[in-house]
Order: sequence, then C-alpha cells, then structure tokens
Amino acid sequence: MLEKISSPADLAHLSENEIQDLAGEIRTELIRTVSENGGHLASNLGVVELTLAIHRVFHLPEDKIVFDVGHQSYVHKLITGRYRQFRTLREYGGISGFPKRDESEYDCFETGHASTSISAALGLARARDYRNEHHHVIALVGDGAMTGGMCYEALNDAGHSHTRLIVILNDNEMSIAPNVGALSSYLTDLRISAGWQSAKQRVRRLNRFPVFGKLIYRTMHGTKKLLKSMLLRGGDLGFFEALGFQYFGPINGHDLASLEKTLKKAGECTGPCVIHVLTKKGYGYEQAEARPEAFHGTPPFYIESGNRIRKPDYPSSGHVMADTLAGMRASDDRIVAITAAMKLGTGLDYFAEKYPEAVIDTGITEEHAATLAAGLAAGGMRPYYAVYSTFFQRCYDQMIHDVCMQNLPVVFLLDRSGLGGEDGRTHHGLFDLAEVLPVPGMTVLAPCDALELSEMIRWTLTQNGPCTIRYQKDGTPIPYCHPEGRHFMPGKWHTVFEGSDLMILAAGNMIQQAVSVRSLLEKEGVSASVVQCTSLKPADEEFLSRITPDTPYFTLEEHMETGGFGSYISGLCRKKGYPQPSDCIGVPDCRIDHGSHQLLMRDAGLSPDQIAGRILHKIGRAEQ
Amino acid sequence: MLEKISSPADLAHLSENEIQDLAGEIRTELIRTVSENGGHLASNLGVVELTLAIHRVFHLPEDKIVFDVGHQSYVHKLITGRYRQFRTLREYGGISGFPKRDESEYDCFETGHASTSISAALGLARARDYRNEHHHVIALVGDGAMTGGMCYEALNDAGHSHTRLIVILNDNEMSIAPNVGALSSYLTDLRISAGWQSAKQRVRRLNRFPVFGKLIYRTMHGTKKLLKSMLLRGGDLGFFEALGFQYFGPINGHDLASLEKTLKKAGECTGPCVIHVLTKKGYGYEQAEARPEAFHGTPPFYIESGNRIRKPDYPSSGHVMADTLAGMRASDDRIVAITAAMKLGTGLDYFAEKYPEAVIDTGITEEHAATLAAGLAAGGMRPYYAVYSTFFQRCYDQMIHDVCMQNLPVVFLLDRSGLGGEDGRTHHGLFDLAEVLPVPGMTVLAPCDALELSEMIRWTLTQNGPCTIRYQKDGTPIPYCHPEGRHFMPGKWHTVFEGSDLMILAAGNMIQQAVSVRSLLEKEGVSASVVQCTSLKPADEEFLSRITPDTPYFTLEEHMETGGFGSYISGLCRKKGYPQPSDCIGVPDCRIDHGSHQLLMRDAGLSPDQIAGRILHKIGRAEQ
Repeated sequence: MLEKISSPADLAHLSENEIQDLAGEIRTELIRTVSENGGHLASNLGVVELTLAIHRVFHLPEDKIVFDVGHQSYVHKLITGRYRQFRTLREYGGISGFPKRDESEYDCFETGHASTSISAALGLARARDYRNEHHHVIALVGDGAMTGGMCYEALNDAGHSHTRLIVILNDNEMSIAPNVGALSSYLTDLRISAGWQSAKQRVRRLNRFPVFGKLIYRTMHGTKKLLKSMLLRGGDLGFFEALGFQYFGPINGHDLASLEKTLKKAGECTGPCVIHVLTKKGYGYEQAEARPEAFHGTPPFYIESGNRIRKPDYPSSGHVMADTLAGMRASDDRIVAITAAMKLGTGLDYFAEKYPEAVIDTGITEEHAATLAAGLAAGGMRPYYAVYSTFFQRCYDQMIHDVCMQNLPVVFLLDRSGLGGEDGRTHHGLFDLAEVLPVPGMTVLAPCDALELSEMIRWTLTQNGPCTIRYQKDGTPIPYCHPEGRHFMPGKWHTVFEGSDLMILAAGNMIQQAVSVRSLLEKEGVSASVVQCTSLKPADEEFLSRITPDTPYFTLEEHMETGGFGSYISGLCRKKGYPQPSDCIGVPDCRIDHGSHQLLMRDAGLSPDQIAGRILHKIGRAEQ
Repeated sequence: MLEKISSPADLAHLSENEIQDLAGEIRTELIRTVSENGGHLASNLGVVELTLAIHRVFHLPEDKIVFDVGHQSYVHKLITGRYRQFRTLREYGGISGFPKRDESEYDCFETGHASTSISAALGLARARDYRNEHHHVIALVGDGAMTGGMCYEALNDAGHSHTRLIVILNDNEMSIAPNVGALSSYLTDLRISAGWQSAKQRVRRLNRFPVFGKLIYRTMHGTKKLLKSMLLRGGDLGFFEALGFQYFGPINGHDLASLEKTLKKAGECTGPCVIHVLTKKGYGYEQAEARPEAFHGTPPFYIESGNRIRKPDYPSSGHVMADTLAGMRASDDRIVAITAAMKLGTGLDYFAEKYPEAVIDTGITEEHAATLAAGLAAGGMRPYYAVYSTFFQRCYDQMIHDVCMQNLPVVFLLDRSGLGGEDGRTHHGLFDLAEVLPVPGMTVLAPCDALELSEMIRWTLTQNGPCTIRYQKDGTPIPYCHPEGRHFMPGKWHTVFEGSDLMILAAGNMIQQAVSVRSLLEKEGVSASVVQCTSLKPADEEFLSRITPDTPYFTLEEHMETGGFGSYISGLCRKKGYPQPSDCIGVPDCRIDHGSHQLLMRDAGLSPDQIAGRILHKIGRAEQ
C-alpha cells in the first residue's frame, strides 16, 4: 500500500482499516530502514498515526507543518513522495534524517535543534496574515522540547498576538532522556485530570491498543492522590489558557479517529490553539518500547534482538570523560556535572551511576545550564558542563557574559565536535573554536584522543578560570601520541614524527589525518614533521618562536577555516613577529550535508590525499 | 543619613520614619548622580524601598542576591559602602553601573543581559546545598526579564528540584518598553485578583503613597470584568505554583512594613518561592514617572525639566535605519521589522510611527525573535531584525541554524557595535564579526556612517540570503566618504585618501580613526592610503589582488582581533595567494571595563597615536 502513496492526497480515500494497515506497513518500513542505516526510531514509531491524521485533515504543502527537532519527520517523508528513496536515509546523497527544503516542497522549514518550531511556525503564520493568505500553520513539538525557553517565548508572543496557529504538543513523557522539570509534572497532572473525566470511555477505546492501553490505565489508577490534589486546585488547564491558547486534549495519539476529529476542530479556531496528544515512543516495536532511550538515535541493529550490529572497540570519549570525573569526585566533592537532557549522549550516565547527586540534568536548556554552571562556580563548586558542540551554540552569550566575563572556573566539555556525519548539517560541530577563541580568559583545548581528554580534565582542577575542551565521539587511543613520560601540559605541543621539509600542526583529533598525509608526502619525496597541537589557547609560543622563515608549515583542523585554530595561530604569529603559516587547512566556507564522516571529510577537502595535494601545491611541488 | 550607612548593618536600628527619610535621601542622590553622569534611573527609583527591605531582612554578603540585568543595583551600591564613590558612577575607573565582583563582596554575581538571575541564583543555591551551608539566595527579576525563556527554564528546574531559593518578581508593568506578551496579561490578572480579595485594606494602605495608590486603585476599578472572568477560572495563581513555587503577593513594593513582613515569611520557606512585588518605575521623580522609558537609560539631563543636556547634531544610526525601512515599506509591503523589547533603543519607534503593523516586538527574547524572522522569511516576507550587537550574542545558534542554514533573507541590524562606553563590559559589541564571518552564506557589512547604512539596507532587498550589518549609535555623516557618484556596492572598497608608503584598510566606522592616524603618520614623513572597507564579506578581492608584496598594509577595526575583519582578510589572502597584512589592529585579548568611549579606545590601544605608533614600529620606523 505504501508504494501507492505518491502524495498525501492518496490518503484521503482510504478506509479506517486501510489506514490501520498502512500504519503497520510504515512501522515495518521504519524499523527495516533504521535497522540498516541507523537513525531516529522511537520518536518516529510514536507519531505514525498522528502524522497520517495531520495529512488527512490538512492540505500540505499549502498548509505548513514545522517539525520541532525534525528527527520525527520520517513518516511525513514516507507519505510525501519519498518512499522510493527512503532506503537511502541518512546516506551520502540520500534522504536526510531531518526536514530539508530542497528535498521536498512538503518540508517548509528545516529543524534539527530543539524548541524552535513554535517560533518558526509563528513567523510563517504572521507572514500568511501579512500576505492575506489563509492556510494553516502547525508546529509539532515534543514535551521534551517544551522545557526549552524558546517555546515559552514563542507561546507568549503567539498568545499575545492572537495569531491563528496550531501547536501540537506530542507528549510521550520523555524526550531524549526522561523528562525533567516542573512542567513535566504539570503535564502529568493534565493527562490524569482529563483521563479521569471520561475514564471509562477512554479505557474502552484504549484497549484496542493493548500495550498503550495498559500503560494509561495503570497511570490513572496509581496516582489518584495527585489527581485529587490537582482537581482541588481548580481544574488547572490554566497554563496554556493563561498564555492565550485554546486547549484541546489530552487525546490518544494512536487513535486515528479522535485525532482527526480534534485536528478538524483545531482547524476551525480563529486564534492560537494547543492540541495535547499522548503518544508512546517506540510504539509497535517491542525493543524500542522497552528501551526508548536506546532507540532514540540508534546505529544499525538486529531487528529481532534490538542489539547493535557493530560495537566500538573502545569506550567513547564521553565514557572516558565520565569515568575521569568520577575519579576526581572521589577526592573532591566540588565536582559537579551538568547536562541539558543528554545524560546518555554525553556519557554522563556513567558518572551518574556512581554519583547521581552530582549530576544535574536541566532539561533541553543549554542557556540556563551554562548560567547555572556559572552560579555553581561562583558558589565554590567546580562544574563540568558536557554538551554537544552543535548545541553549545545555544549558550554562546551565557558562555561570554556569565562565565568568562567573571572568569569563573566552568569547564565546557564539547562532545561531537567536527563534522556530524549522518545527522548532517544541523549537527556539525564546526563553529566552537570561532566561539571561544576570541573570548578573553578562556583556555581552549582539543585532545588527540580520549586518553589525553582524561589528562586534560584532570588538569582543569589545577587552574581557576573557564576552559573549553572539544573532542570527537570516538575514544580510540592513539599509542604514538603517548610515549613514556609524556603528559598533557598547557601551552605545550609535541612533535610526533620528525621531518625535514615542512611541518603539519594538527589540532586535536586531526593528528591521525596528519600522519596519513605524512605518508603520502613521503611517497612524493617530501619529509614532513607532524606536531600534536592540543593546547590551542594558550598555544605553544616557544615552539612557534623557533620556526624559521624558510620552513613551510601548515595548520590542520576539523573546524571552519574562518575563525579556527589556523586563523588564531596566524594572528598570534603576526603579533609576535613569527613566520606565517603557509596554509591553514580546515573546512572551507560552504555548507556540508550528511553522510558518512569519511565522505563528508572529502566534501570538505580534508581527506589525506586532498590535504597532501594542497600542501604539495603550496610548496610548488605539484598542481592542486 | 546616607553618609552614615557604611554597611547594611547600619540599617537595622533605624526607625520606620528614619528609613522613610533615608529612602528620600537615596532618591535625591540617585537623581543628582544620574542627571550628571547618565545611567539607569527609573528602575532604581522603583526599587528603593525593596532594596532597603531586602538588606534589613537578610544578611548580606553571607546571604546572596543576584540582580537580573543589574542596572537596578544603584541603591544596593549606595548602602553597601559605596556611597562616597557613587558620584563616579559609570566614569572611567569609577563605580560600575552594574554589579561587579571586584568592586564589592556584596556583589556576588555580575549581570548585564536580561533573564539570567534565576539560573545564576539557582546555581548559587545548589552550591550552598552541596557545601552544607545555610544562607539565603535571592534573585531579583523584573517582569520584563520574565518574558525571556531562560527564566522559565530556570523556574522549571528550580521547581522540580525543590531547591530553597527566593525569587522576587519586581513587577512594574513595563521593562524597557511596555511589556508585551501573554504573561504580562496574566500578571495583570494576578495583580487584580489579589487586589480584589482585600480591596479595602489595600486601598487604605496604598493611600499613604498618593501617586502609586491612585494607580492601583484605578486599575482595580477599571477592569472588573477581567477580574471576574479570572476568578471564575478558579483563582489561577497556578502558574508559579504549577512550577513548584510557593507564591506570595502581590504586595506594594513601596510599603516597607509589608515588604519586610513578606520577605521574612519567604525566608522561612523550605523550597523555592516567588514574591510578587508591585513597584512603580521612576517613583518619586515626576519626570521619570511620566516618561519611564526615557529615563530607563538616560544621558545627563536637567533635573527640573528632565530635558537632555546635550542633543546630538545628527539623527542616530537607528533613526536613519528606521526612516530607511519606512521608505522601503512604502513600496514593498514584505518589509517587516523585529525588535526584542528595544523599539526605542534601536530607533524602530520611528518606523512604528508610520507602520505600526509592520513592527513586531517579541519581548526580551532574542532567540525567539531570530527564529521568528526565519519563519517570516520562509513565508515570503523580508524581515529586518534590529538588535544591539551585545544582545545578538543571544541568538547565535538561531542565526546559524534557523537563518543561515536555510539561506533565508533575514537582515540582522546590529546597533551599538564596538566598545560599549559607560555601560561597560557587559555591553561591548566586540564579538559580532567572530559570530557571523565563519557562517557560510552570510553577507557581512559595516557602514562607515549612517548614510552608507541607509544605502546598505536598501541594497539588501536586491539579494536573497542572510545579511548582517554592524554599526555604531552615532549617525554623523562623514562627507569625504560620499563623493559625487559613489554608492555602496558589495565587494567593493574605496580609497578615501591616497598615499604611497602603506595602506590602512579601515573596517566600517574606523575610517575616521584611520584618517587621524594618516595625519599623524604624515608628520613622521610616512604617506598612508586610507581605504574604506565596508563590505567585509564579500571582501574586495580585486583590490586585494592588486596589493604588491612590498606595500605594507594594515587592517583596523573596533572588534576583537581574534576572529575579526583582519583575521578574515588574512585568511582570504592566504587562500588566494595575495600578500599578508603587516598587522591586524583591533581590540586585544583582554577585558575592557567602562568609561567614555575615547578612554576605552585608549585601553584597547586604538587611539590614533597608539595606532600610528604600532604602524611605525611594524614598518621599522620607530619603537612601539
């Protein structure tokens, strides 16, 4: 059946039974493709019926939908003419794992970071009103993303302006990690309150979906006390209504009929409204229902067991980071770790196993988390804030204004720096050095591997100002970077391999790439030194001062060339009167999409042969 | 009396009458000093009693207070041992207009940007608990700052963790601009509801403060309908309580006795609580009460009339920007302007006079505003987002992720770029180029004056991608930059004055500084060209390609050297094989405090004689 859906119009004439069958087919397709390509599974399994209902009630692409975070748009892709390409999901040149405007006219706005959808949808809705158009605009946002302050800013603005806008709150009681915060309890209250009002009818309907039905049923019975206290408070649907939104729900997000009925009602609103939909992450795939966190974003896996197909040989950098913090905490109880709803992704779950009281999960709130860290540091603690490089962009001002301006000892641990691979352009970590290098007082480090990461983290306790450490996920140790007796020292670089013709200064993880380049150059009769530059700011000025003007040298980094390590070294050398680098090699000034890390490195001109070619060209030894 | 208050301990034994007198003295001192030095007046006049009450009930510096935004900390400064230095407010080397840790142990956390206080206070409170300490932590936050999402992120986190924390909501019914948003209506509801419950008693008490009393009284009578609908909704103090906070209020923020009573009660809470205090901005100074927006941040003024002492000769850049947009809107109704609660500061009030429907004020929500702009652009509009450079830091991720990644035609108009002058280090606009230059697809412009700003804004309509224009407040035209027939063109620089020995490439507003440097160099027998570089990205590659290796050239900018214009030009020239700049002159890697712009330029090494010295040194003509 799925094969015959070439556009959402083909959904209109399907009977309820046919739609149910289609939903089953979609789930099969989702599980198969993600098990092979990796990707976001649990969230997509949760929104199958909801997505179908939206497409049956509204008329896309004339009506617009903005998917918050965007990784739950697979179902939408499958029924908007992309079924045939779907097996290329997240592959180089294939279908993106996120909405993408140049992929389809049904994708009206690109997302990837959380909590942006209501703002974007409000913009689209206001544009519609300015242009006297009349279509619907929908934001589909999870309860996890609702912990982000931007949602609230947008709700406040939309409620105030009475703009016609439909916000669908997809409440699955967890985002990436189980939801934290008072809002989460509040939503639980809502769920229960409404459940209570028509309990019998609801339970009867839910029983058509056995697993889900049981879940709701149990909740209703187990929390009567909370329910009562809630009702005594006076109904309390006030949150959204106080913000000027009409509220519908909560409704069962796997019940197509009631979804469609409510969506139609919402479509008749003349102002902003919220539809509160209850879904179950991973719905319909036992493994994902049981471990939704593991199937949030997953590498390829065996469908039967849910086990991963390949396991890394070494613990990830995040795992090593967490073990290091745990070791430090054993003798220093000032150590506290912070995550913005990414305990699992950052590896902090390993730290939390030993010291749960020393891990603070703030929700999807990168801004608040950074200033919270500043407050903790001002109060005498030593906070370590672990965050993906791409999400670190969210707390740029807080890093400058709340941490660095006061010179507070907050350590930013930036995981997933560099090219983001299959997650694509919303997830690259290519700007972090441009963020932190210009900020006075910030120490900037980039370990070559997880071993050095561990040394660096331990070192941070010996200093008393802000520090950023950027690293990649892979924790594989690089033995030649750790000869006997060599340890990390700030402002100190190491020559890993000596050469006589030129030098490659490799920032952080680029050391391996540099060593491959060295081999290629050797074949051309060019002898290159490879220098392990892991203390970026302070740089090794003593080393730079010894470079002679007749020695060509090259900087190498997995970061935008503009504003990166090379650019910083060039500025420093100009100031000090040292020779300039012959070339600063990094990611050029263009957009890089999704695909395997290796292919993206090639797109960026950072494969060993490309780098070698560029170096040979610069020293006049070959055409580029 | 104020003279005798050397620390808050001296407040304890004062009688109620004495405190009233002290409050009067403080108001006189505030008005006198700000009328001479400029600064934030209305907000400080509004918190005199509140600040005194806090210091009488709590024991600073052991107890901690974080001032949101921080410009309402003058009263706090006057009674924490800084009375004698207070006349140096905002002067170079004098008392800062914001809390500053190295100024006093009573300033526990520095602020300047809105909505950070609850996060910081929560950090301080958690640190207290980790360390088994027992002091109080207070966040004082205005209702305007409450529109910022960070507050909500922090409330959610604090409510969830049940951390003992006192949030004082200073509700003056406006922040910088009259408050926007649904939350504002909600707070109005709260005010009215509580007012109704004990109306008679309240009105009697309020009458002791004639102006304020009348205001409340009027509100209560004029909105009975709203009151009723509110009460029918069931009391509805639910917002803070749903988030896990105990709620006190609203109370009259100019009534010391009830303030102290409530603060004491709040001090006994074992979890987080909110005290909702009603104050009047500008209270006690007629001019400021009547025009609180004008007396939010004010230059020196005549106390009697409230008129400014000096008026600028030319309209500000913001004014010119607004007029330009108005001119464009006349023939193109896609033009829409966005501000995050800074209509007046950015000049957009002039645009709003003509096209009120085309100005969107989102509240203090830089993040949301940027993504809203992206949504508007995706919907076919042409949004212009006017924001101070320093607050632009707030929407760094949204700029990258929501605007540039999709190549949407959003124009960021960055006012107050460069050194922030008297407002000091929280308000410098020194990172904006480092933010935007590395981002693919972004056009980056910096006009030399307001005339060119206007040309640039008109040009943006001819292109179809994101653009950033950074400019300073002063709109004075520079005639020699506008010879007959010369107009702004992207990627095109102009030589304003020819010279034979070297070239100065002046970014944006630095052209005047460069011309002064040229005169100084001339006296030393050095002939310099001065080049007006206002199209930063794209740069004038044709110009750069013509530079000969034996011509020393220098870049000049009012921005951090790291990540700025010079750094970008250096990278570009390296890539293209053009000669490198001899030096890239900007703000060095250190913190710059507050004072007159001229003195701060000297601190940054950017006075004409310092620049000339640096250039002469580089070309081997003099010692630096």
